[in-house]
Amino acid sequence: EEAAVRAQAETVRRLKQDKADPDEIAKEVAKLLDMKAQLGADEGKHKFVLKTPKGTRDFGPKEMAIRERAFKAIISCFRRHGAEVIDTPVFELKETLTGKYGEDSKLIYDLKDQGGELLSLRYDLTVPFARYLAMNKITNIKRYHIAKVYRRDNPAMTRGRYREFYQCDFDIAGQFDPMIPDAECLKIVHEILSDLQLGDFVIKVNDRRILDGMFAVCGVPDSKFRTICSSVDKLDKVPWEEVRGEMVGEKGLSPEAADRIGEYVQLHGGLDLIERLLQDPQLSQNKQAREGLGDMKLLFEYLTLFGITGKISFDLSLARGLDYYTGVIFEAVLLQQEKEHGEEPVSVGSVAGGGRYDGLVGMFDPKGRKVPCVGVSIGIERIFSILEQRLEASEEKIRTTETQVLVASAQKKLLEERLRLISELWDAGIKAEILYKKNPKLLNQLQYCEDTGIPLVAIVGEQELKDGVVKLRIVATREEGLPVAWENLVEEIRIRTSQC
Amino acid sequence: EEAAVRAQAETVRRLKQDKADPDEIAKEVAKLLDMKAQLGADEGKHKFVLKTPKGTRDFGPKEMAIRERAFKAIISCFRRHGAEVIDTPVFELKETLTGKYGEDSKLIYDLKDQGGELLSLRYDLTVPFARYLAMNKITNIKRYHIAKVYRRDNPAMTRGRYREFYQCDFDIAGQFDPMIPDAECLKIVHEILSDLQLGDFVIKVNDRRILDGMFAVCGVPDSKFRTICSSVDKLDKVPWEEVRGEMVGEKGLSPEAADRIGEYVQLHGGLDLIERLLQDPQLSQNKQAREGLGDMKLLFEYLTLFGITGKISFDLSLARGLDYYTGVIFEAVLLQQEKEHGEEPVSVGSVAGGGRYDGLVGMFDPKGRKVPCVGVSIGIERIFSILEQRLEASEEKIRTTETQVLVASAQKKLLEERLRLISELWDAGIKAEILYKKNPKLLNQLQYCEDTGIPLVAIVGEQELKDGVVKLRIVATREEGLPVAWENLVEEIRIRTSQC
Repeated sequence: EEAAVRAQAETVRRLKQDKADPDEIAKEVAKLLDMKAQLGADEGKHKFVLKTPKGTRDFGPKEMAIRERAFKAIISCFRRHGAEVIDTPVFELKETLTGKYGEDSKLIYDLKDQGGELLSLRYDLTVPFARYLAMNKITNIKRYHIAKVYRRDNPAMTRGRYREFYQCDFDIAGQFDPMIPDAECLKIVHEILSDLQLGDFVIKVNDRRILDGMFAVCGVPDSKFRTICSSVDKLDKVPWEEVRGEMVGEKGLSPEAADRIGEYVQLHGGLDLIERLLQDPQLSQNKQAREGLGDMKLLFEYLTLFGITGKISFDLSLARGLDYYTGVIFEAVLLQQEKEHGEEPVSVGSVAGGGRYDGLVGMFDPKGRKVPCVGVSIGIERIFSILEQRLEASEEKIRTTETQVLVASAQKKLLEERLRLISELWDAGIKAEILYKKNPKLLNQLQYCEDTGIPLVAIVGEQELKDGVVKLRIVATREEGLPVAWENLVEEIRIRTSQC
Repeated sequence: EEAAVRAQAETVRRLKQDKADPDEIAKEVAKLLDMKAQLGADEGKHKFVLKTPKGTRDFGPKEMAIRERAFKAIISCFRRHGAEVIDTPVFELKETLTGKYGEDSKLIYDLKDQGGELLSLRYDLTVPFARYLAMNKITNIKRYHIAKVYRRDNPAMTRGRYREFYQCDFDIAGQFDPMIPDAECLKIVHEILSDLQLGDFVIKVNDRRILDGMFAVCGVPDSKFRTICSSVDKLDKVPWEEVRGEMVGEKGLSPEAADRIGEYVQLHGGLDLIERLLQDPQLSQNKQAREGLGDMKLLFEYLTLFGITGKISFDLSLARGLDYYTGVIFEAVLLQQEKEHGEEPVSVGSVAGGGRYDGLVGMFDPKGRKVPCVGVSIGIERIFSILEQRLEASEEKIRTTETQVLVASAQKKLLEERLRLISELWDAGIKAEILYKKNPKLLNQLQYCEDTGIPLVAIVGEQELKDGVVKLRIVATREEGLPVAWENLVEEIRIRTSQC
């Protein structure tokens, strides 16, 4: 076994030397770590491998600061659109998730049977949302939900693809007039991607009914609609020839049907394309396709009023993997930037996606009562990757604490006075720290402020104590002004920190 | 089997009729649901039980509003004390958790072995924090972490005890002068419980070294320290006689040793008790106890400077269940309020706890390098229960959205104008909604504002469109001032919402 580990280590070394695809390197490194962990477990505790599980990561203070910035932008958009917020458990009854994800079901994490119910980690936030609506008989809600979901997928961490990752979901449930909530979801994607300044993007739009109509007129048998749809979904990653091969080879579609699909899925455009397809001799004969195209036209009218059609592309190759969509589907893709000098290109794909799923809630309701839903999910991990990398490139120093003032001492034996003063500041709501030393050197205290970005130091000294005052020093400029009386200190700190 | 379900249903009915202990009812209801689920699973999909897993719950918009209020108070306290924030994955390698929790290890949730690493859901945030420090070779950090943890415990949901629940942890890691960080942790608990206005509370304090010294002088063999400590930990739930029985019966302690422990664990007090025990003929001979008592004295000096000793009780019966504590331990308990008229008493116990764990990081370091740590965990679920119940009693109406204005129409056929106007408002950062109807009635639009607490309505009408103005109505007073020009609307909404 040790020989196997050494061989694997050599593989990794060679890939790195050859500057291979980072994802491939990551895959082989993960394999190596797994093998080492296995070996360590066999040899007892001392070979214990210190790592997070495959496909997961810690967020340190700096990463958290970036993450919270992104969340703030996203939440404030959801709030701007009048959403409430809910939360559900991280696991569901296994049967709640069964039959909702089609071919992706194999990626669900199950919990061990330790007696009691059989549980699985949630795979997305949409199915738990539908379960929540059915269980509480809610027929009308606009909510967001930001939480981690779990997929036993092959991680590609350099591209921001993890096994544990956040989804930021916004959904509108209820019986409404056509395409108004759908248009709002697209407006939200547009607002968030613009606000986060991630560069140019396009939001691809299609409709499951148009896809199904297209499959029908191309001669795909009904029973193969979903599986052929899964094949089309791969078009953003692999070329048409390969997808065609899968359709004809693995899935037993006739070559003629595949070729007819091949012609449709090349099409993308705007209102003009919708109009053209409404005249298409085959498609226009299909009820599903006609309905889908009619609604697509209405959607584009609303998007025109929102002034965002410039970034929207009606794209017949967009299929979306999940089984539960019934109407409009969409996906936002960042467009690759020109490489700037010294900046590594981040390869990202889809950063948001969603659609209409009118049947999902009904699957949970004992009487099958439907609640129409449409929603969007922002894929925050890929956005983090970009923001993180941009921050690194910019050399902007990001603060990870909010401390306004360090309570310091100029001489020894002043711990008691520092504790008394900082206690007063905390009670007044001032963000304050001290060094946890009895007799810290003034220089060390000032250095701590420089390192962590604390803007002010309140310096306690023997003479100042006698006079009932404190020196308040601005770290950046080293200015000190006149000593401040203890009773005025809180006010003075407030004024100075609102300025600097 | 169906007969068994019916019998169980009858049991539940009877308990409810007899107004039995709510926890007992909850237990039997859970059992009933489990039985039904079992039966349903046997009979196929149609008997599917719509529920969240045992010991978990959803948070609807109202509960989330309460939860976010509490989080805000807690985070702002952590931030005030200069903490950074981190996050770790929801699961860890199984071996990361092994050997850290003593008798509680049986409550850990394991994931199913689906190939690859063996994983477990985190049981607390402390062990993942220690793993994070060791893995990243961090020797100095002050951080908070708010996240869900998982325990396969017997849920008592009416008392706020769940299988999935939030912990809010604040920890200080690093080599510092004694008791300064420890005192800050207690100050934080004091600030948070005061800020949340949960009523009177007491923070019990003890030290593992004092406990170990006490066990030694009482004649407990070294090998039994941890298990006897677990018994003492039960004293807040069961009477001494029962704990003594466990010590002597199950754990094989001599009756004399148990009785000597029984005398010590009755003691609680302040500085006076510390002084007395420092003079105790037995304890003062024990090195561990002497060190613990010396540090306890220092701690009380610092807490005096912070002005919080009024709520602190040095209590020799406090033991804390977890294995990893090495020094100071503490636990905050809410004191039962007098029942006010019409208010059901919520029985809550510990709402915060923590202590010093100087050895935990070393367990992860390949060379055993130690990083001293002290921290506190706020048990938010019990706090929720109280806040939730108080809100219900107060009849305060809590808003679950932040919408400032509803864009409404006075006549039919104005959807396009509503969409154009709301798009402008969103782009200007105004929180706005419309009803998703082509032609909603004005009355329904006004009613929606009343129901959801939206303070303003911007009404688009045919005449106003011609004049380039909008009516802006205050929902509460039904006042309508002069029509506002489109270009002034954003400013006007900002002014009015800052007032109401």
